[in-house]
Amino acid sequence: MSSPFAYNAKLTECGTKHLAMFLAIREAIAEGTLAPGERLPSTRRLAELYGLSRGSVSLAYEMLTAEGFVQAGIGRGTFVAGYGHKRNDGAASSEEGESPAALPAITDWGRRLLELQAVEASSGDVGTSVPFAAPSPASSDPSILEANARVSFVTEGLSAARFPWQEWKSEVARQWKRIGVYGSRGLENSAGSLSLRKAIAGRLRRERGIPCGEEDIVITSGSMQAIALLAQLLLEEGKTAVVENPCYKGIERAIRATGAGLISQRTDRSGIVPQDWEATLLFVTPTRQFPTGVVLGYERRQELLLWASKRKAFIIEDDYDSDFRWGGRPLEPLKALDKEGRVVYVGTFSRSMGTSLRIGFAVVPRELLQPLLLAKKLYDPYPTSLAEQQALAGWMSGGGYDRHMRKTRRLLGKLERKLRECLETNLDGLFTPFPADAGMHVYARWEGTEADYERLIRECAVQGVRWKNGSAYELPSAGRPKTPPSAIFGFAHLTEREIEEGIRRIRRAAEALSLLRDAYREQGGKVHA
Amino acid sequence: MSSPFAYNAKLTECGTKHLAMFLAIREAIAEGTLAPGERLPSTRRLAELYGLSRGSVSLAYEMLTAEGFVQAGIGRGTFVAGYGHKRNDGAASSEEGESPAALPAITDWGRRLLELQAVEASSGDVGTSVPFAAPSPASSDPSILEANARVSFVTEGLSAARFPWQEWKSEVARQWKRIGVYGSRGLENSAGSLSLRKAIAGRLRRERGIPCGEEDIVITSGSMQAIALLAQLLLEEGKTAVVENPCYKGIERAIRATGAGLISQRTDRSGIVPQDWEATLLFVTPTRQFPTGVVLGYERRQELLLWASKRKAFIIEDDYDSDFRWGGRPLEPLKALDKEGRVVYVGTFSRSMGTSLRIGFAVVPRELLQPLLLAKKLYDPYPTSLAEQQALAGWMSGGGYDRHMRKTRRLLGKLERKLRECLETNLDGLFTPFPADAGMHVYARWEGTEADYERLIRECAVQGVRWKNGSAYELPSAGRPKTPPSAIFGFAHLTEREIEEGIRRIRRAAEALSLLRDAYREQGGKVHA
Repeated sequence: MSSPFAYNAKLTECGTKHLAMFLAIREAIAEGTLAPGERLPSTRRLAELYGLSRGSVSLAYEMLTAEGFVQAGIGRGTFVAGYGHKRNDGAASSEEGESPAALPAITDWGRRLLELQAVEASSGDVGTSVPFAAPSPASSDPSILEANARVSFVTEGLSAARFPWQEWKSEVARQWKRIGVYGSRGLENSAGSLSLRKAIAGRLRRERGIPCGEEDIVITSGSMQAIALLAQLLLEEGKTAVVENPCYKGIERAIRATGAGLISQRTDRSGIVPQDWEATLLFVTPTRQFPTGVVLGYERRQELLLWASKRKAFIIEDDYDSDFRWGGRPLEPLKALDKEGRVVYVGTFSRSMGTSLRIGFAVVPRELLQPLLLAKKLYDPYPTSLAEQQALAGWMSGGGYDRHMRKTRRLLGKLERKLRECLETNLDGLFTPFPADAGMHVYARWEGTEADYERLIRECAVQGVRWKNGSAYELPSAGRPKTPPSAIFGFAHLTEREIEEGIRRIRRAAEALSLLRDAYREQGGKVHA
Repeated sequence: MSSPFAYNAKLTECGTKHLAMFLAIREAIAEGTLAPGERLPSTRRLAELYGLSRGSVSLAYEMLTAEGFVQAGIGRGTFVAGYGHKRNDGAASSEEGESPAALPAITDWGRRLLELQAVEASSGDVGTSVPFAAPSPASSDPSILEANARVSFVTEGLSAARFPWQEWKSEVARQWKRIGVYGSRGLENSAGSLSLRKAIAGRLRRERGIPCGEEDIVITSGSMQAIALLAQLLLEEGKTAVVENPCYKGIERAIRATGAGLISQRTDRSGIVPQDWEATLLFVTPTRQFPTGVVLGYERRQELLLWASKRKAFIIEDDYDSDFRWGGRPLEPLKALDKEGRVVYVGTFSRSMGTSLRIGFAVVPRELLQPLLLAKKLYDPYPTSLAEQQALAGWMSGGGYDRHMRKTRRLLGKLERKLRECLETNLDGLFTPFPADAGMHVYARWEGTEADYERLIRECAVQGVRWKNGSAYELPSAGRPKTPPSAIFGFAHLTEREIEEGIRRIRRAAEALSLLRDAYREQGGKVHA
């Protein structure tokens, strides 16, 4: 038998024989050198081969068994376990449908997280975006193969090239230096960087009319931390929350994790349709409904506030991309109209600066401020990313952030116009884009049948273009007809040329499937068979 | 009536009249310009004074009322509320004993957090460190007043001056640049930076004998995030956890927040005393018990693992400062002995690099890996501090981290020897330091009466020296005698000169209180009256 394991390399690394053997065999299994079902050498044989004691080898085998990489049959030897060739990186094992019931030690909370993950994974196929496919024999156009530039409309946030990294990295380095010289005391408390909270409060007062000071603001690591902690503070089994339908999955997850009930409320062209829900918490995106982009009407805003007042409920207003608005001043946020302290306003910088920067914030009513701070401190006793928080504050007060936003708004407005224009002139009739004057994506309803939509998505994957399917954000609404299919075309990471090319490919796919026929006939165009 | 409010300044800032008035009055209340109980001008009068409509003023008053800053009596006018002069920054309101029962909307989880905070705040007086006091008339020594350099032995971690910030800030800036050019894709997944996980795994294999690869590691924002999430996954009402007594408060909080029961287990000079606890989770600090610094004996380590195996329980091994060891190789961590995947090993970089850097990690058994990743993603869907994670990885692989650690270890060893020497030669008999060969503090038992200890602490506050009282980490243990008083002398932020000066002041305080008499007599020294 040759030496199949990188034992000596591991021994050099870790210095302990049984560990080295454990690591070497595990690596061989992970890399497929040892296949599932394969029999391992006997401990005696392996000990001889590598000049080890049988005890060391046995110990390595025991550890492999405990971790599930191998299985020992009594008197039969030791075999590579069936699933051993896959890395257990979380996602993988859930896709295999590993049962949450196999974990007796896990709490109800943990079990709910696992179940949610399993449900999402199983519905993920059509739900999210389709991966690019290899060209099928059926697609004959040779130009597809030469195109190395696939186009993905799946939202990625602002492309890295559109962020002034030189400015940013200098600002961060300056802050680390400052912390190095003076320490971090006086810069922060458990609510986060003081100067950042001041900068945010000033901005919210000026630009959004929200009456707040730095003492109302809690900095979080992205807006999801605020949302999940607030859910945990306000929801539990026996309580109920309302969300818009469609809705960001992270919010649904935060609610379901608590064990609370969930009402998914229909939205129309004026946003969520208010009801007298029997619930204690409402999540809403009034400035720009996610993902449809519709604006919540002023009267509905008042109705939601009345509901919260009557029910003594709270509203979490997620203003996830109000900063990206090129079409005039938005309506006042709920928080600006909130006279009773029933609204928590949540925002984020991860969209304007890229997802590598995890800074969000919440404007919190008095009653919830201390609970939220305590909740945050349970996980983060000290503020996270303090240097980045300070850098952002410095960048905001120095005018850099505003300069970046002005530039970005202009650019996004231009890209959005290009995208709408392309959708209308090239795919007229297939998609109806919803109107919007902000954001980083266009939401568009599919005007054909569901079956045709799925065919188109698959053909587009072959043609090298894809987008996020709107159904990814749909919640089951009992006894209501399914929402028509829709698409989310993100554009903030693309150039105008890429947008054109992407739509051209969708058109090509639609032509190949003869989906454009009727639209063409109306325009007197040539019918594609 | 003169103009008491900064209305015009606020108007310039926010542009909306009622907001400006709301903010201006709130500021006046916060700053004490308007005292509690003071009557506000009538809406008519204020409207005249500032040229506003009465509607705007009424709206501002309504908002102030909703937020609790003012109270309106029917037909009597509007008054500044009694507690309005204090900022509601969380800590303040709890110290006022605000009742959790006043928050009907809060979940059981949130209520437990509030109750814990209330308990900690009420026991905080003697429990933690005493603030420096103003010199009392009784203390007559004029040298106290001239001493501007007060000495605090309260642990602060490594002083900022001992960290190579130039190196670090360049490394962080380099990483931001890299993210700017290439984006962050490929660098990370939900478990954190890939290169950092590799660097940590390599280090743990080499230095701690823990058989792990990057796929076993989850990066967290400090070790508390890992601890709190694991508690939430493994504990709930009806379950029980065991902790060492004394114990880090954050761990106690994480357990109590879940509603689980808590057994606080006595520790002796060999660490926690194993029992057959009816529990499903054990938190333990084997390498260096926190805060006593004692090392858990090898046989006890085996006993704990046997217990976990028998009970199908998990052990969270918090190895919070194993990196700071100047006295030879430590015993193997529990994780290195863990053949059944029952141990989660938790570590942090916040101690070696300062609390401004929030990077911790957990080495997670297979069974808990996916649940922990899902739990983390609920709050942080993307890794936080990615640039810092990458920078740390780069710094580790480039040898910078090891250089820093070698230098720091030498330094800390020297400081610790100095501190022990001073404690023994100057305060002989008052404190008995526990032996240790690692860490950033010395734990010492007080040998006198409790009453004398409290007198000494108070006198030291006057003399300008303080430390953390060991009772801050004591848990109530039913039916067991109270642990003798103790002190935690942190030294990693001090110079040798400061250590000397601090101990000299303690000596002076002890002399002033005649506490040194007996010790002196034994040595044939002069008796101080």
